[in-house]
Amino acid sequence: MSKNDRLVVNAIRILSAEAVQKAKSGHPGMPMGAAAMAYALWGKNMVHNPKNPKWVNRDRFVLSSGHGSMLLYSLLHLFGYGLTIDDLKEFRQFGSKTPGHPEYRHTVGIETTTGPLGQGIANAVGMAMAEKRLAAKFNRDGYPVMDHYTYVILGDGCMMEGISHEACSLAGTLKLNKLIALYDDNEISIEGSTDIAFREDVPARFRAYGWNVIDVADGNCYKNVCAALRLAKSADRPTLIVCHTTIGYGSPKAGMASAHGEPLGEENLAITKKNLNWPCEEPFCVPQEVYDTTAKTIEDGERAEAKWNELFAKYAQAYPELAAEWSLWFDEKLPWDALNDESFWSFPGKAATRNACGEVLNRLAAKVPNFFGGSADLAPSNKSNMKGAGDFSAETPDAGNIHFGVREHAMAAICNGIQLHGGLRAYGATFFVFSDYMKNAMRMSALMQIPVTYILSHDSIGVGEDGPTHQPVEHLAGLRAIPGLNVFRPADSRETAAA
Amino acid sequence: MSKNDRLVVNAIRILSAEAVQKAKSGHPGMPMGAAAMAYALWGKNMVHNPKNPKWVNRDRFVLSSGHGSMLLYSLLHLFGYGLTIDDLKEFRQFGSKTPGHPEYRHTVGIETTTGPLGQGIANAVGMAMAEKRLAAKFNRDGYPVMDHYTYVILGDGCMMEGISHEACSLAGTLKLNKLIALYDDNEISIEGSTDIAFREDVPARFRAYGWNVIDVADGNCYKNVCAALRLAKSADRPTLIVCHTTIGYGSPKAGMASAHGEPLGEENLAITKKNLNWPCEEPFCVPQEVYDTTAKTIEDGERAEAKWNELFAKYAQAYPELAAEWSLWFDEKLPWDALNDESFWSFPGKAATRNACGEVLNRLAAKVPNFFGGSADLAPSNKSNMKGAGDFSAETPDAGNIHFGVREHAMAAICNGIQLHGGLRAYGATFFVFSDYMKNAMRMSALMQIPVTYILSHDSIGVGEDGPTHQPVEHLAGLRAIPGLNVFRPADSRETAAA
Repeated sequence: MSKNDRLVVNAIRILSAEAVQKAKSGHPGMPMGAAAMAYALWGKNMVHNPKNPKWVNRDRFVLSSGHGSMLLYSLLHLFGYGLTIDDLKEFRQFGSKTPGHPEYRHTVGIETTTGPLGQGIANAVGMAMAEKRLAAKFNRDGYPVMDHYTYVILGDGCMMEGISHEACSLAGTLKLNKLIALYDDNEISIEGSTDIAFREDVPARFRAYGWNVIDVADGNCYKNVCAALRLAKSADRPTLIVCHTTIGYGSPKAGMASAHGEPLGEENLAITKKNLNWPCEEPFCVPQEVYDTTAKTIEDGERAEAKWNELFAKYAQAYPELAAEWSLWFDEKLPWDALNDESFWSFPGKAATRNACGEVLNRLAAKVPNFFGGSADLAPSNKSNMKGAGDFSAETPDAGNIHFGVREHAMAAICNGIQLHGGLRAYGATFFVFSDYMKNAMRMSALMQIPVTYILSHDSIGVGEDGPTHQPVEHLAGLRAIPGLNVFRPADSRETAAA
Repeated sequence: MSKNDRLVVNAIRILSAEAVQKAKSGHPGMPMGAAAMAYALWGKNMVHNPKNPKWVNRDRFVLSSGHGSMLLYSLLHLFGYGLTIDDLKEFRQFGSKTPGHPEYRHTVGIETTTGPLGQGIANAVGMAMAEKRLAAKFNRDGYPVMDHYTYVILGDGCMMEGISHEACSLAGTLKLNKLIALYDDNEISIEGSTDIAFREDVPARFRAYGWNVIDVADGNCYKNVCAALRLAKSADRPTLIVCHTTIGYGSPKAGMASAHGEPLGEENLAITKKNLNWPCEEPFCVPQEVYDTTAKTIEDGERAEAKWNELFAKYAQAYPELAAEWSLWFDEKLPWDALNDESFWSFPGKAATRNACGEVLNRLAAKVPNFFGGSADLAPSNKSNMKGAGDFSAETPDAGNIHFGVREHAMAAICNGIQLHGGLRAYGATFFVFSDYMKNAMRMSALMQIPVTYILSHDSIGVGEDGPTHQPVEHLAGLRAIPGLNVFRPADSRETAAA
């Protein structure tokens, strides 16, 4: 490890621990353990341009272990995304740019809001699905205009959550080879050793999903992680890199559950700095060499986008129709004047709203070609299939209908990921009653203010014969109570179209 | 396969298909494919007494694929649990004993309400945990008074749901060797072949969880299933028996998605009867040999309970104190007059309600020794640990504190299973906001009217620094809208005790 690279890794560790110490609350252990993994990504592998965090072909990064938010804030500071040392000093303070968990829209450079465990890995699966579909639609020989990786760091908590099973099983089925997940395997959770509740063989589980699995014995060394990333990029399927790390690395609390969710303490912090040969005694001091090192990455990022801009300009000349479609797909506005198109609003006679919904979806799909969604194995009942749009699969990625499988929770979080990626409009469908299974992910759509569409059919006790387990009685009230979620319950076809 | 055994298996298939046909809705394919598995259990392996469906030491059976309810109703009829042919004819009719999905309390012999996929397998894990703890507490050399298996049939849908991952990973960690799951592996789901969304290697996944896995190439033959069950019983860990079956076995729709969720049709039903050499043309006709065959099982069940009663009588003589405790544990009433015990209601000074809750829980645990529960990896925050009750694990099963891991959804469904088992009082704890993750399982507690306690700490925007992902704003309204769920939000220690 070069001296300067080591300094950057330690800067991530120290800044994270210091911000938690100053806030007197937070999670220092995770950023300290995952700093090397993060640096291998942000400093050595990710193609990103801090000067333009919205560049469409950037590599995506998701911190699924959202409680380790200081990892992300330290990175955003060091890599020039605009977070200042003063912002770091305001960690977990009201109104600051550095809240307890990373929030999309709130802080520049954050791809998705995380915190509820497991959401991030499912978002990442959605982003990788979006990339795969867009690449299949737009790329042409010599013009890989959509061509990026989706990276995610996740921990034991995410691994235990059911949503990680749903999303990763689907990712394996779809052979999302540009999805690379780094597992922060530190063997510690809040109640103690993971051994008390979690003895599964995670690598074997992911191999069972059809993933490529790479083991990194010392995940505290960024060069080892880089070697694994190199292998991961050549795989024909998603990769899990199992990084054996140490929670609270470098501190006297290293490897202990107490490093997880409370400040190290001033004394321990001082010892940590000695252990890591950190050159500054005063808090929030970062040696110039650190910024000099990350400056190179920032320049590389600018060059990468400039090169892509050139590529895209040539693409637009070679394939003007595709380039026009690209603009349309990446525009958030609807491509036609829906309000004044009476043909969209007219229906011959009466129909069950779920049939009307199917009709409306198909009318929309005809006008808005970048719809991308499907059902949790209830498409025939939900009428959520887009005719002629094809089935999205490993073999046929240029298609609009997603078969999510019986995985409601992951479906909603994957839709969030697709929508966050850009270029596509996500929707997910199931029975209304099973909104229960995906409620937290729907709440995340609302919190992030992203326009994911949920099609929830089979309302109220009118469902009848299937009985109370299938009759959503309280769900309308429950969903309407979620701030920021628009809930429409149409009474006829015209109202369905309006919804 | 003896002629009569084959007749019973076909009786299950034909009755199920006929009831669905008469109702003009329902799911014939699953019962027809799983009939042999079910008969291997109910006719040849399960120790149960249809004359006393509440015998505490009976083997438990859970149909996790609840939509295949006719499988269960056919069994309950054929094995003398009191369901009549007329009940079967009223399948899916309002007010009948045979609703669309199996409902606990509503129909005798049903161990749990299922339908929302994945709930049943998690309930079964809870039942097996209850059995393990009670066995550890009460059994003595030569007196295995708590000694039964928990069997569950589950399908592809349950396998895809995240809750199956959470529950089965925990079951492996806890080495629940008396849990035996039969996987109805028919490779068909509603949208078509499971291949479109579900290509994972399920056996490898379960081996990764620490399960014993047995493959049955022809799951349509009950003798093969019996051989696998024999092997499963000698394992030192939970077993998954992978039964390769054919959805809609025997019918012209065999192996097709269309056999899943709609009647076969009169014509196909007639062909099915010919294919299976079924002796009756008229519907709902069952040859006497079928009842003669199941009558033997019913007698065996009576003898088994009588033998157990003898054993327990001797146990009560040898261990009178344990037998007295047993009565206390299996009594649903509280063992002391809580209302008039002022020491339970008095608190010195003010305390945060979560601390008060921890205090109340510990006061209760001192009086009510059969509390059994824990937290989804937030025990230090939820204050949900019972001091001195020990940690429930594979090595120390006689203990009260459960480490559920970061698995909220499974936690709630496991608590349902523990409570349904009897002998224990279940509770689960997490942050209030994560009630989102377990909402459907909480709804199931309410639907089944079982007194599971949920401890949900960290309420409202007062949570503060962790931000909106951790602030339950709408959750109180959402949970209060669930029919049958009692939601208390205590304002001080005394109110916490009352809750």
